[in-house]
Parts: sequence; C-alpha cells; structure tokens
Amino acid sequence: MDARISLITLGVAELDRARRFYRDGLSWPLSSASTDEVAFFRTGGAVLALWPRPLLAADANLPPEGSGFGGIALAHNVATRERVDAVMAEAVAAGGTVLKTPADAEWGGYTGYFADPDGYPWEVAWNPFFPMAPDGSLQLPE
Amino acid sequence: MDARISLITLGVAELDRARRFYRDGLSWPLSSASTDEVAFFRTGGAVLALWPRPLLAADANLPPEGSGFGGIALAHNVATRERVDAVMAEAVAAGGTVLKTPADAEWGGYTGYFADPDGYPWEVAWNPFFPMAPDGSLQLPE
Repeated sequence: MDARISLITLGVAELDRARRFYRDGLSWPLSSASTDEVAFFRTGGAVLALWPRPLLAADANLPPEGSGFGGIALAHNVATRERVDAVMAEAVAAGGTVLKTPADAEWGGYTGYFADPDGYPWEVAWNPFFPMAPDGSLQLPE
Repeated sequence: MDARISLITLGVAELDRARRFYRDGLSWPLSSASTDEVAFFRTGGAVLALWPRPLLAADANLPPEGSGFGGIALAHNVATRERVDAVMAEAVAAGGTVLKTPADAEWGGYTGYFADPDGYPWEVAWNPFFPMAPDGSLQLPE
C-alpha cells in the first residue's frame, strides 16, 4: 500500500456553515466538483472534504453517535513565527474558536490551536525543524 | 490563509501497536524525525503523525474524553478497482478491521472502509472521476 492520504473528510453538522468557514472565511478554493451535498477543497495535497456527519458515518458503516474529543488533529504549518499569530487571527475572524493561544512549544516551535465551527481542532504551527518546500509541504527526513 | 494541511495526527492508545500497523503492516516510511513518543510518516503530501491520545488532547487544550464516531474519515484513493480489494486485504492482514466490504458506490466508484487498530476509519476508493496525478495526488477541477 502506497503511503498516501488522498482525502480528509470532516463530518459536519451544517454544510452551509462549514463551507462558509473554509471558503469565505479562510479563502480556501472550493472545487467545482462540489455539490449541494458535499464540498471539496483543493489544498495542493490531501483534499479537504466536508460532508454531513450522518452521511459520512453511514458511508463508513459506523453508528453516527459520538461525543467529546474525536482523537484527530489537523495541522497547518507556516513559514514564520509571526504567521502563526496572523493565521490564528484570520481563523477567529472567520468564526473559529481559540482552543490554545499561540505559545512557545517545549520542542522549540511556536504553536496555537483553533477549532472550526464543528469543533475540529487545527494546530497552527511554526516548526523550524521541519523545513517547508516551495509548495508549502513539509520536508521530513527519511 | 493558504489552503494547506501539513499534518494529520492520530491520537493513539498504544504507540507501539499503531506504529507497527502503519510501518510494518502497511509498509509506510517512518521518518527518522520520529522518537519514542511520536511517529511521523512521509506520505508525499500531508504527514501522518501518531501520538498518544492524552498528549494530543492536552496539546490542543481539550479534555481527552471522547467516545463513538470521531467525525473524521481519511481516504486512500487507488488507480484501479482491483487495487481497492488488494489494499483492503493488505490492511486486514496488517491487523485492520473491515468496516465495509468494498462495493459499487452510487456515484460510480468502488469503495470499502477499514479501521486501523485505534478504530480510525480509512476509505479505500477507486474514483474514476477524480484522476490521479503521477505522484498519486488527486487532481480536482478548479
């Protein structure tokens, strides 16, 4: 199996609200492949999809119930420490919620967390030890 | 904010077990940036990280409790219908659990789901409408 994550799908309570947050609030490019039922965002890497939560659970053949921390966090790395504060401010202006105010991390970076309208946690991180390629992807050592 | 997902971190119950599943079972390339506390896999796109769940929750300043469907699904797209069955079999041999046996999807593809050892759902999908680039990434229309 190739090491590849093609899509990340967030099961959302209100598709309109979630789409507005990513498309209008964060200015992410909505793909024309989107429909009234699902939104796809082109990110240069793994596609971000938004889909009503009950439909996603049913598609995976899982009971839709769930509460509390879902166990997964997404991260958006930036090239400078200053960009962490700027991106956090942009996310809050878009309707996100601050989970953790940016602070120095013990491993030497600078990170904060916001939650999207459905509560999914996003870390915004400056990590001087994981250099970024020109396309924004992380360059991990082998 | 650029449209970019840098890392996806799964909060895991037993790091050893999760690392074995992805590294030994699925043959994903573990980065030397990994430590005894965290595993990083290079995927060509968003990095997959494994980290003990309580540490991830604490990092995001969230209560660690949670149960049921976490609301997020990851997807691994493949180039042919036959590869869906092959990847599902590989995941099961590695210790994954079948959530949904591969079947024709009403939108015209062919997909199944497996759960990793922590229960995180992975869709394995052949989608003839989302062509794959030579590097394996999806090429969504603008």
